[in-house]
Amino acid sequence: MSRFAVIMAGGRGERFWPESRTEKPKQFLTLVGERSLLQQSYDRIKDLFPAEKVFVVVNQQHLELAREHLFELPSENFLVEPAGRNTAPCIGLAAVHIRQRDYEASMLVLPADHMIQGKRDFVDCLEKGFAWAEKEDSLVTIGINPTRPETGYGYIEREEEEKDKDPAVFSVRRFVEKPDVKRAKEFVRTGRYYWNSGIFIWKASVILKEIENHIPELSQGLKTIEKACNTPQAQKIMSEVFPGLPRISIDYGVMEKVSKIFMVQGDFGWDDLGSWGALASLSEKDADGMVVKGPFVGVDNADCFVYSKDALIAALGVQDLIIVQSDDVFLVCHKERTQEVKELVQMLKEKEMEKYL
Amino acid sequence: MSRFAVIMAGGRGERFWPESRTEKPKQFLTLVGERSLLQQSYDRIKDLFPAEKVFVVVNQQHLELAREHLFELPSENFLVEPAGRNTAPCIGLAAVHIRQRDYEASMLVLPADHMIQGKRDFVDCLEKGFAWAEKEDSLVTIGINPTRPETGYGYIEREEEEKDKDPAVFSVRRFVEKPDVKRAKEFVRTGRYYWNSGIFIWKASVILKEIENHIPELSQGLKTIEKACNTPQAQKIMSEVFPGLPRISIDYGVMEKVSKIFMVQGDFGWDDLGSWGALASLSEKDADGMVVKGPFVGVDNADCFVYSKDALIAALGVQDLIIVQSDDVFLVCHKERTQEVKELVQMLKEKEMEKYL
Repeated sequence: MSRFAVIMAGGRGERFWPESRTEKPKQFLTLVGERSLLQQSYDRIKDLFPAEKVFVVVNQQHLELAREHLFELPSENFLVEPAGRNTAPCIGLAAVHIRQRDYEASMLVLPADHMIQGKRDFVDCLEKGFAWAEKEDSLVTIGINPTRPETGYGYIEREEEEKDKDPAVFSVRRFVEKPDVKRAKEFVRTGRYYWNSGIFIWKASVILKEIENHIPELSQGLKTIEKACNTPQAQKIMSEVFPGLPRISIDYGVMEKVSKIFMVQGDFGWDDLGSWGALASLSEKDADGMVVKGPFVGVDNADCFVYSKDALIAALGVQDLIIVQSDDVFLVCHKERTQEVKELVQMLKEKEMEKYL
Repeated sequence: MSRFAVIMAGGRGERFWPESRTEKPKQFLTLVGERSLLQQSYDRIKDLFPAEKVFVVVNQQHLELAREHLFELPSENFLVEPAGRNTAPCIGLAAVHIRQRDYEASMLVLPADHMIQGKRDFVDCLEKGFAWAEKEDSLVTIGINPTRPETGYGYIEREEEEKDKDPAVFSVRRFVEKPDVKRAKEFVRTGRYYWNSGIFIWKASVILKEIENHIPELSQGLKTIEKACNTPQAQKIMSEVFPGLPRISIDYGVMEKVSKIFMVQGDFGWDDLGSWGALASLSEKDADGMVVKGPFVGVDNADCFVYSKDALIAALGVQDLIIVQSDDVFLVCHKERTQEVKELVQMLKEKEMEKYL
C-alpha cells in the first residue's frame, strides 16, 4: 500500500494583488524565504514521498510555471484542470489518478500556498495522519492549535477524549464556518476548537466513496474521467466533463456531512497567508514596526509593510500602511483593510482594466 | 528706454521629487494645466515683451530642455550659469547682459516655477511696477496679499500710506524671514504684511549699482564678466569667474539692506508651489477630498493627492496621503509632511542612490 501527495496549486490568490497576477498567482510567489510557496510546499514533504508519488493539480494557464517551479517531478504528475471547480473536483481528480496507480493507495492533500514554520512537527503530524487513515479507512484532517481568535479561518470542534489514547488524535465533532470575533474568542477559550488547515489524509478509494455518497453528480463525472484514463480519449473526455462538474469545496461537500472523521492536532506554525496583512503580521519587524523588502528610503514611518519588486519606495511620516510595488502597479492600503484587496481586483475587471491583473 | 524680462530657471525644486529629477527639475514639469511651469511663466508675460526682450537664466545641464520648452526665444537669450550661485549672481548676470543691449533698460525678474491664476491682474501689477522703477530709479518688488498665515514664505512689511496716493503702491518698511505660526497670524491680522513673491522690477543699472554698494565681491566679478561680453573670451571668462561668485540671495544681499524700495500690492492668486502639499491644496477635489491624476483604482479613501506618471495607483482605506509615482520611484507621504521630501532626497545622496534623483 503506497502513499501519495497531492499539492493543490490551482488557486488565484487575488488578495496578494498586485504581486499576484492572473499570470502568476500567489502559490508561485516568493513571499517568505527564498523559494515560492509552491516550492516550499514540496520541500516540506519531499523526505516523505519520492518524486513520482507527488501530484500537482494546476490550471492549464499555469502548467508551464508549475513545471518550472517543481522541475523535479515527472511531467505526467501535473494534473491539469481545464477550469477551476473548487477543491472537491480537484481532489476527486487526483484520487482517480492515484487509484489508477495503486487501488489501495493513501493520499495527502495539501494547499500550495500556505506557510508552515515547523517542518519536523509537520512531518510527524502527517505520519500520524497516514497511520490512522490506513488503519481505519477513515478521513483524517489536520487541525491547527489556534494562537489567536482568528475570524478568517474555519474551525474544527473535536470530541473530548483522545482516540484510543493516541496523543493529539481526536474524533471530529463538527466543522464550523468562519466565526465572528465573539465566537472565535470563545472557541479559543474552550481549547476544543482548531483551525481548519485544509490539509487532509485518506485513501483514494475512501474519499471517492464519500464523494459518491455525498456528491453523486461529481462522482458520476469522475467515473467517466476514470474510465477514459490511459485511453487516447483521456484528454478529450477531461475537457468535456471537468468544466461541467459541480463547483463545490471538499469541506462543504464531504467533510461537513461525514460522521467518522479523525483530526490530528498540529502545532507547527501554520498560516494560510490569506492577505498582505497576514504576511505583514508574520514578518519580522524593526524597532519602528517596519518590514521592508526591496529598495526603500524613509523618514519617520511606523508599522508599515513595504514590499517592492524593483522600484524605489519612499515613505515619509506614514503609519499602518501596506505599500506594494509590482511592475506597473503601486498599492497603498491600510493594514486593517488588506482582505478587501480583492475588491480592487473586482473593480479593475469591471472597468476593463484587466491589463493590471 | 526699453523693458526686458528675466526668467530665473536655474532651480532644482527637490521638493517635487520623485517627479522632479536632477535631469528635469520643477520648472520643467507640467504640474498644473497643460504647459510646464516655465512655459506658463513665459505665457503670462509674452504680451508685454517681444521674444527678443525675454532672457532665461538656466544651468548648463538644462539648457537644451529650456530651449525646447521656450523655442520661441532667440538662442542667445538663454544665459547659462556654469554653477548655481543663488539669485544675486543670477540677477546680476542678467542685468549685465541687458545693460549691454540698452544702458537705460529696465527689467522684470521672475522665478520660473510659480503659479499665478489671474494673468490680467498680474500684468496690470507689472505695468505699475515698471512705471515706478523707471520714474524713481528705485527697486520695486511685488508683495502678495496673504490669504492664510503661511509659514513657508518670507513677508514684506509696508509703510502705512500709499506712495503718492497711487493705489496699491507702498514704500517697504522691511523684509521679514519666514515667521512661525504665531507671528504669521499676527502679520495677516495687521493687514500691513505681504508675501514676498520674489518678483522684482528695476533698471539694470540700478540693481548693478546696489550690488556694487552691498555685495562688492559680486560686483567685482560681474564687471569682469561685463568687460568680456561680446569678445571671444566671453565664455572662458564666464566659466572662470562665475563659479567663484559669492553664493547669496538678492533678498539677503540687497533688498534687506536698501532703504528705498517700493512694493506693488498683488492680488492675482499667486503660489510658489513649494511642495506636493501646496499643489494638493490648490487642486480641485472630488466629494471625498481626492485629487487624482493618472491611472487609479480606489476603495474608501479620503483627502489624498494621487499623481501617477504612468503606473496604476491602487489605494484602499487610506487618508491624508500624497501618493506619487514617477518612473521607478513611488512616494507615499503624509499630507502635512511634504516639506520634508527634500530630506528623502538628501538621504538618497548620502546612501549613494543617486540613480533615483
